[in-house]
Parts: sequence; structure tokens; C-alpha cells
Amino acid sequence: MQVTEITPRARAAARILAGSARQLKDAALVSMAQALLANTDAVLGANRLDVERARQSGTPEAMIDRLSLSAERIAGMAKGLRDLAALADPVGQVVRGWDLPNGVHVDQRRVPFGVVGIIYEARPNVTADAAGICLKSGNATLLRGSSSALESNRAVVTALRCGLEDAGLPSDAVNLVEGGHETTQQMMAARGQIDVLIPRGGAGLIRTVVEDSQVPVIETGTGNCHLFVDASADRALALRVILNAKTQRPSVCNALETLLVHRQIAASFLPAAVDALREAGVTVHGDEASVAMDERIVPAGEHEYEAEYLSLDLACRVVDDLDAAVAHIRRYSTGHSETIITNDLASQRRFTSEVDAAAVLVNTSSRFVDGGEFGFGAEIGISTQKLHARGPMGLTEMTTTKYVLTGEGQVRA
Amino acid sequence: MQVTEITPRARAAARILAGSARQLKDAALVSMAQALLANTDAVLGANRLDVERARQSGTPEAMIDRLSLSAERIAGMAKGLRDLAALADPVGQVVRGWDLPNGVHVDQRRVPFGVVGIIYEARPNVTADAAGICLKSGNATLLRGSSSALESNRAVVTALRCGLEDAGLPSDAVNLVEGGHETTQQMMAARGQIDVLIPRGGAGLIRTVVEDSQVPVIETGTGNCHLFVDASADRALALRVILNAKTQRPSVCNALETLLVHRQIAASFLPAAVDALREAGVTVHGDEASVAMDERIVPAGEHEYEAEYLSLDLACRVVDDLDAAVAHIRRYSTGHSETIITNDLASQRRFTSEVDAAAVLVNTSSRFVDGGEFGFGAEIGISTQKLHARGPMGLTEMTTTKYVLTGEGQVRA
Repeated sequence: MQVTEITPRARAAARILAGSARQLKDAALVSMAQALLANTDAVLGANRLDVERARQSGTPEAMIDRLSLSAERIAGMAKGLRDLAALADPVGQVVRGWDLPNGVHVDQRRVPFGVVGIIYEARPNVTADAAGICLKSGNATLLRGSSSALESNRAVVTALRCGLEDAGLPSDAVNLVEGGHETTQQMMAARGQIDVLIPRGGAGLIRTVVEDSQVPVIETGTGNCHLFVDASADRALALRVILNAKTQRPSVCNALETLLVHRQIAASFLPAAVDALREAGVTVHGDEASVAMDERIVPAGEHEYEAEYLSLDLACRVVDDLDAAVAHIRRYSTGHSETIITNDLASQRRFTSEVDAAAVLVNTSSRFVDGGEFGFGAEIGISTQKLHARGPMGLTEMTTTKYVLTGEGQVRA
Repeated sequence: MQVTEITPRARAAARILAGSARQLKDAALVSMAQALLANTDAVLGANRLDVERARQSGTPEAMIDRLSLSAERIAGMAKGLRDLAALADPVGQVVRGWDLPNGVHVDQRRVPFGVVGIIYEARPNVTADAAGICLKSGNATLLRGSSSALESNRAVVTALRCGLEDAGLPSDAVNLVEGGHETTQQMMAARGQIDVLIPRGGAGLIRTVVEDSQVPVIETGTGNCHLFVDASADRALALRVILNAKTQRPSVCNALETLLVHRQIAASFLPAAVDALREAGVTVHGDEASVAMDERIVPAGEHEYEAEYLSLDLACRVVDDLDAAVAHIRRYSTGHSETIITNDLASQRRFTSEVDAAAVLVNTSSRFVDGGEFGFGAEIGISTQKLHARGPMGLTEMTTTKYVLTGEGQVRA
């Protein structure tokens, strides 16, 4: 089906969802989980076709692993849907309310966006995840997954739609968009039909959507994250945090990419850091000053500060002071998560105030910038933009608000 | 100066503003007001040039009135700036804060956007207004006014910049963008340099910015507002609200444009409404059913339901029931303010739930959907979009948030 055929059906479903009480949505999530489990064999069979095609076209093993489903992973997807049912419903919450001087009562209420478009890459578990988060927040979805996961996504969406119908909600609340790049274009042009687009994936995908979409976009995810070791830092603490931020899961957006070290402590701190990092399998790339302090550091060009490695590589630079650290971050940051390790109150205040990012951390790991760690219970992505939501986005961030004014005939003088 | 030359200076100023305490910003607002008053003659002289040129090019009187400044209007602009100094500062407010289970403390704080671009039409008082609201919320501005108000805007901005410098804040916090349509294009392309664009003006301007901008946009203003008179309505109350919403100030976005009347009461209600509306100078345009009930109603085509009249004209339609009213609104609404007049609880519940707009009103006038009436003290516009802010936007809506995480070396397991 064309995007233009799907959107009116999704909008009709969204209207029903917007008026559905929490218990109905929760029952649907449980029913979707059951349907997914009941169709495990069908989903695994479909997934085998995707994996086979990927192997034949020479896809790297890491990508194949992300694409591959197992009975366990499907059970995990089902559990994710059940967990959503247990979370509070943001819809209907009154954000604030007050009386105008003339007695008109004003309520600002949370309401769903309506229709949410998600454009994402290989992992088929995102399909169930995103559909579930949108459903719980009262939104219908258009899911535009990667063509490499098409068979898997078809099987997952078929199961989810069965679950919705069993629970008495319209199956058009969850829609898979099939087809080539022209379907992404159609989604980006569907202003007024799709209320918001969320791209999830690599930097290239996100840039395309952000630049070309006429539908409002929530930009997620690219994280060129920095950590600045101030002269006053507790060095053992700094090493612990650096190792965690870089190696606990290097492939994600809140992992550390560049280490900035205050010149005053660099000569002694850097070799200790390189010891620990190398032991953890990390290659350190640095500027001339850092290479001069430790020859195990690989010389790095300017451009390495722009890279989001997402691997066991770390860029490193010696900086003169906090100002130089902030200036470096200002130049290369993608506005995700930026860290200072310090024991100095003035440095802490200045860094948290002057660094412009979704999250600024003091003496702790950027790996905590995550919806799960924040206690949101669910996360659709991490926004690196300034409008609407900034940082981890949970159910609340998948809603907008509506003012409701109630009077007894008051008019404006 | 080119936009590309202005933005780095504005960004540098924005960094200073973001770290400026409220008292400094308030002193600057007062100083800007003083400078504006002290330069009344210069501003009036510049304005005369604009008005003369407008007259020569045959501009309609209504537009000339909007363009014209007087000593009184300048005093009003100065008072607006002083009033802003008295309002609470949203920057630094903690929206929420909590401890993670491991003791890391999380604060979500309000921070300025950074650099805000305003693209607006004729009225030069917007120049002082927008600059003041942005300054109070810690943002630097690029003001791209109409070329027809260029001399006036230059004189106003020169005064405001003097006021800023006198108060010890950088004059680059407020910048006038001069030049033709290419400057609007440059602003829309300045992704990463301008944090948000707000178009203020006619539907054409807003559409262009929304469709072409790579910088995130907050869409404001077009209001094709409806009022539905339910069968259960108090008729005297309905008439009072209709007259107020249509005639109290017909040229603004929260004025009434289309009246929908429940068929059950239309034959008796419509003639009474037309009596009152005609007496107030309003021409009523209606569908066949309404013309059949009152021949003073001018026959209207479908397209009249799409028009935002902004004049003493009102479209009218007889609808079968609440469902038909909601369906009409769904089709023609611009998502601004939609009203029901009813005494029936079920109708009230359904209308407020099913109508998708920034504001939904029950038994009161849509003219109250306004930052001033809401008690915000200042308004940069009324957002009709769903992302970030929806409805009247005051100082709070001119900020984003930042998460600050503070720990003592906690790492993720």
C-alpha cells in the first residue's frame, strides 16, 4: 500500500486511540505480546529469509547479528510490550490548570500527537518496541523499517495487528510501510497526515530526514560525546568513568568518543589512562601534545575529532584549561552528552552552564543518559535537538498538549 | 551584513546571555526602553520615510496604519520592555529532578534556545517586542522584518542595541537582518547557527518557512476558528459568545470564522443570530440549508469554509449533529481554537476530546486564547503545531531544557 493510502486509515485509528481509556490500550499491549509469542515460528521463518539474503549479499556479521531473531529475542519483544502495559499513561494528565480572572477555567492536558512515523534501520525488534510505545501514548504509527528486514517486519506487524484486533482496537493503529526510498520521501512530504517523524539509525539517515522533511521531525541519536578531565579531578574516579563510558557498550550514542585532558595533569594522567584503555582493548588517537606524552597514542588529525567512532577507539586531546575544553566541545559536539570530571566547584558550575547539550554530567558516566536508566520505563530514542523534547524520550515525550477552556458565557472586553 | 556574518556574533552574544543573571537582563530591558524613548524623534523620522514610500506605492490604508508609529506607540513599545523586566525568569527553573537508584542526581533545567530567528511582516512594534521577549528568555535574535518597515526597524534596533551596551550586555544580542528574500533563505538554511525560527505574519509567509526551512520552526498563527452551537445550547449565551468572538477584533487569529449550527435548533436560532450579526456589521455566508432558513445569508461555496476571513464576514453551516460538526472542523480547522456552546455534558466531553486543536473552548470566547489573557505577561505568538509548544507562547515556551547529572564516580553495570 502507498503511504497516501495508509495515512487516512492510520488517522482514523489514531482518533479511536486518542479516545481509548488506559485499560483498553493496556489490554491491547498484552494481546499484542501474546500474538507475537503465538506467531514465533512464523516470525522466525520470515527472519531466516532476511538473514539468508543478507548473507548472500555479503553483509558483515555484526549487522547480521543485529538482524537475527531467536525465540529468546521474540520473547524479549513480547516482554517489552507487557512492561509498557504496566507504565502510567501520560494521556489525560493535566500539566497545569488555573482560573482566568473572569472565572474561565483553563486546563492544559496531555494528548497524543496522532500519527507518528518512525524511519529506522536493520533491527526488527524496533518494530515491536516503537509500535508499543506509540500505542501506549495513544498514537498510531507508520513503521518504515529497512528493506533488509522486510520479511521479519512483515511477520511482526502481522502478529501485532492480530493482537490489536483481538483486543478490540483497530489494526490500522500499527502499519508497516513497504517499498523503496520513495516511501521515505512520501512520509517526509505527508504534512498534516503524519504529525511527527522520528528517524532512528545512522547519521546519514537522520541528516536526510532532518533536512528534507516537511513533517516536523524529532532528531535523535548521534552522539559525539566528550569527557574533560579537569586539573582538580580525582584521577582514579576519572579512569573508572572513562573506561565505563568508552567500553561498557561502545556502539551506542551515549558512549564516550573524545577525551580532553587539562594540560596541568596530562603528562602524568595520560600514560595511566592509556594503560587502562589499552588493557580494555581501546586504541587511543591523539594530537601532537598527547603523542609527545605517550608514544602509544596514535597520531590523530583534526577530522578524528568529528568522528563518532562507535568502536573501541577514543580520540584524545590535551587542552590548556576549561575554556579550551568548552571551546573544543562547542566545535565538535553533537549536543548529546558531555562530561566533566572535577573536584572544583567553579569548574563544575561553569561547565554545566556553558556546555550546550541534552545532558551534561559531573563525575559520572554518560552511559546513564538513557530512558531506562532515567526510570522512564520505555525509550523511543534520545533527542539531540532543542524543540519539544531534549534527551531521553519516554511516553510523556510522545504526547503534545491541548488547552481546554471552560466558561459560562464569558466574553472578552 | 550577511546572515552568515551575523550568526557567529549572535551565537557569541547568546552564550553571554545564557550565563547572565536575571537582574542583568532586567536592567538591560529597562535600558533598552530608555534608549527607545530617548530616540523617539529618530525613530519617528525613519518611520515617516517608510510610510511615505508605502503611500507612494499605493499601499492600502489599513496596512499604512499598521506600519505607522507615533510617540504614543513608541512609548507603548518601551512600556512593553519594562513590563518584561517585571516577569519571572524561566531560565534556571528546575522542571523536575530526582535521584537515580545509584545516587546520581538528575536535574532537568530550563535553558535558552540560543539564537532565535523571527521572520515577520509590516508592524515595527514587533521588533521591540520580539527582541525583548527573546532577551528576557536568554536568547539572541535575528530579526528579519518587512522591507516596507526597514527604516523604522533600523532606527528601533539601533536604539535597542545602544540600550544593551549601556547595560553591559553585547549589542549583538539583537540583530536586524536586512536585504531581500535571499536573507530569508539564508536564515532557513542556517541549521546549527540559528536554533529555532518563528515566522509571524500571513499564511503564505508561514507556509514558506514551514516547508523550506532546515532550521527547526515553530509554526504560529493561522486560525480558521469554528464555533458549534449544540442543540442543548443556551441561545442568549451562544449569541453573546459568537458576537464577541467574531467582532471584538476581527483581524486576529483567534477570531471566529465559521459558525456551525445543530439542525435541530437552526431554523429558530439562525435568524436571531443573523439579526445580531448584521447589526454588528457582519456579513453571513452560508450553505443552502442556512440560506433556506434566512434569506439574508449570502450563498457560500465550499471554499468559503477554507478562508480565514480576518474581517467582518462569517461562514455558516447547518450540521446534522455533533459528529458532523467535528467532521467539518477536522476537515477545515487550522488547529488553533475551536468552540462548542452546549449544556450537555456528553457533548462537552466528546467535543473537547475529539477536536484536535491548540485550544478547545466550552461556552466561552476564543478571543481568550492569548498569552496576555492567559496571564503569561508576554506572547511571542500562538503555536498551531504539536511539537514543543502548542497554543500561546510566553517566556517559558522560548526555552528548552538540559539534563544535569551529578555523581561521585558512579558507572553503569
